[in-house]
Amino acid sequence: MKIDGRHYRTIFPDAGGTSVQVIDQTRLPFAFELQRLATMEDAARAIRTMVVRGAPLIGVTAAYGLALAMREDSSSEGIEQAVATLAATRPTAINLRWALDRAASVLRGVPDNERAALAFEEAARIADEDVASCRSIGEHGARILSDIAVAKGGRIDVLTHCNAGWLATVDWGTALAPIYVAHDAGVPVHVWVDETRPRNQGAALTAFELNAHGVPHTVIADNAGGHLMQHGQVDLCIVGSDRTTASGDVCNKIGTYLKALAAHDTRVPFYAALPFSTIDWTLNDGVAEIPIEERDAREVTHLTGLTEDGGFATVQVVSPGSPVANPAFDVTPARLVTGIITERGVAQASPEGLLGLYPERRKPA
Amino acid sequence: MKIDGRHYRTIFPDAGGTSVQVIDQTRLPFAFELQRLATMEDAARAIRTMVVRGAPLIGVTAAYGLALAMREDSSSEGIEQAVATLAATRPTAINLRWALDRAASVLRGVPDNERAALAFEEAARIADEDVASCRSIGEHGARILSDIAVAKGGRIDVLTHCNAGWLATVDWGTALAPIYVAHDAGVPVHVWVDETRPRNQGAALTAFELNAHGVPHTVIADNAGGHLMQHGQVDLCIVGSDRTTASGDVCNKIGTYLKALAAHDTRVPFYAALPFSTIDWTLNDGVAEIPIEERDAREVTHLTGLTEDGGFATVQVVSPGSPVANPAFDVTPARLVTGIITERGVAQASPEGLLGLYPERRKPA
Repeated sequence: MKIDGRHYRTIFPDAGGTSVQVIDQTRLPFAFELQRLATMEDAARAIRTMVVRGAPLIGVTAAYGLALAMREDSSSEGIEQAVATLAATRPTAINLRWALDRAASVLRGVPDNERAALAFEEAARIADEDVASCRSIGEHGARILSDIAVAKGGRIDVLTHCNAGWLATVDWGTALAPIYVAHDAGVPVHVWVDETRPRNQGAALTAFELNAHGVPHTVIADNAGGHLMQHGQVDLCIVGSDRTTASGDVCNKIGTYLKALAAHDTRVPFYAALPFSTIDWTLNDGVAEIPIEERDAREVTHLTGLTEDGGFATVQVVSPGSPVANPAFDVTPARLVTGIITERGVAQASPEGLLGLYPERRKPA
Repeated sequence: MKIDGRHYRTIFPDAGGTSVQVIDQTRLPFAFELQRLATMEDAARAIRTMVVRGAPLIGVTAAYGLALAMREDSSSEGIEQAVATLAATRPTAINLRWALDRAASVLRGVPDNERAALAFEEAARIADEDVASCRSIGEHGARILSDIAVAKGGRIDVLTHCNAGWLATVDWGTALAPIYVAHDAGVPVHVWVDETRPRNQGAALTAFELNAHGVPHTVIADNAGGHLMQHGQVDLCIVGSDRTTASGDVCNKIGTYLKALAAHDTRVPFYAALPFSTIDWTLNDGVAEIPIEERDAREVTHLTGLTEDGGFATVQVVSPGSPVANPAFDVTPARLVTGIITERGVAQASPEGLLGLYPERRKPA
């Protein structure tokens, strides 16, 4: 998407094809800086320190990391060592492992001296496929937005939670892709951006990327969405998903469930937008079956931001001595989800709905 | 309640009866300091700058402010000027106006030279009545907690939002009063404390006062409560109220509605605890009829906290250039409220329920 009118991806190879550049997301929203990754260790560090984040982007970065490793040591041992190092950077990220397995399997059957070039090609292919998948999610979702805009005869207000935007992918995003496609097509869209405590991905990243691309938006505290829905100020909710059950339960950033409840109570449509890779076909009861990561208390107790003099400071905001709990995700039951938008279309949040989009997943009778 | 084992009220007269002391709430939770109010202007400034906050406490502070004014100018003009100055400090606070009207009416019929002493007595009476009212809310509510603890046979987990504790009143609080009474009686209580963005009254004040009194508690992001309820980790919700309709709709800090929805969805009892003075008998439809204050965007964009070196810093956390909306309250419809706890007992959140506690409000047939 665009920053200052210029199109960017979150990761892209340099002209010579020997290194890649990424947007340094630890500096956002207060500075836009690119970082050059010239070695496998550069790529591993970028993932580990969250210079890049978001499951699809992490996967692509790891694939490029493997390609960079091949320039140093293209032996079979070199492949296994690079995969092990890169996989360990964020052990719970599903896409990371998937992208590494795919890229490594392409390399194993070929001569050492062809591996570096092939690895760069495969990383580029994974990146391009992610862009195409997100773009397709965007097109399917944009139809929902434009239908509502036509029915309403004016600007539509979409609420989103966390950052499932292009910064979490290579381009377009998942939850934000329908918004970008609709906006670019001239549909008048305004986005309510949940702050998304405790890591503030909404206030920092979603607000930044919507602002940079020129999409009208307003940041709100996570507490405010229900009130806005009660007063008819939200036409639609769209969120991303970290894991989706075969039954349509949506595991996403903590607080998503509360917005889905408010949407249901006020008859506001509530959609999750996600690529097929987040669907876990082995699960049926998300609340019972999906383990929820408990993260560091410091994410709640401390905040880092910009000071008046342009520097950065970290401040403690929770009363000293009080214990803190920090569950990172919650599960929204399928009964509260109006529909699921994927790269193949829009489905009901139900086993039948999802199997309708992915018939190859049907078990033989 | 207690701080370091010593009992405090949030406001209390000095031994000589010529000034009052208050806890400086702008310094909490990072410093516990008393501030002496020796003149009417001191009292007005304390209210204006939120050294004191919470409707009941503001009312008592204003009443003492009038008493302090009488020591300087006890003429009838002096009364009216003091009332005007004090009433203007927080124009929307209902209790402020009510306390001033009550204290002033006591003074108008008596000789000038008796007014200062009478005003101090009346302020003390208003304070004592607030304490008795909160204590009574606590006793009625504590029965609900102890019943659940007995049924469960162990520790009960209560979730609360914002600060409706003793810091918002003279002592005991409203939503926290049942927790203090139960805790002091030996009922094992643990409190989930919502951070309460954007002003963080939960993380700062509720956590501080529970910690100081020794009540087990855990601070959570506002987003986390629904997840905890889904997983059986909340037995009961109790919140305060800024305004309650005759039909039982509860207007309270923004985000309360979202917790009530989650409680309803997961069959967790949801109570509001409030004194009679917050019931607005003229209203029936809270969502439609109660105007919601829109506060400064800076409350969302900036946060002040403690730095590593023990100083204070204010940091910006929202992406620069993004607009912000900041509604301060929302309305929880009576259908989501299990019951309303007042100084007279526990009622259903309905016209009949509330009239049962306040039969004098019944209109003649």
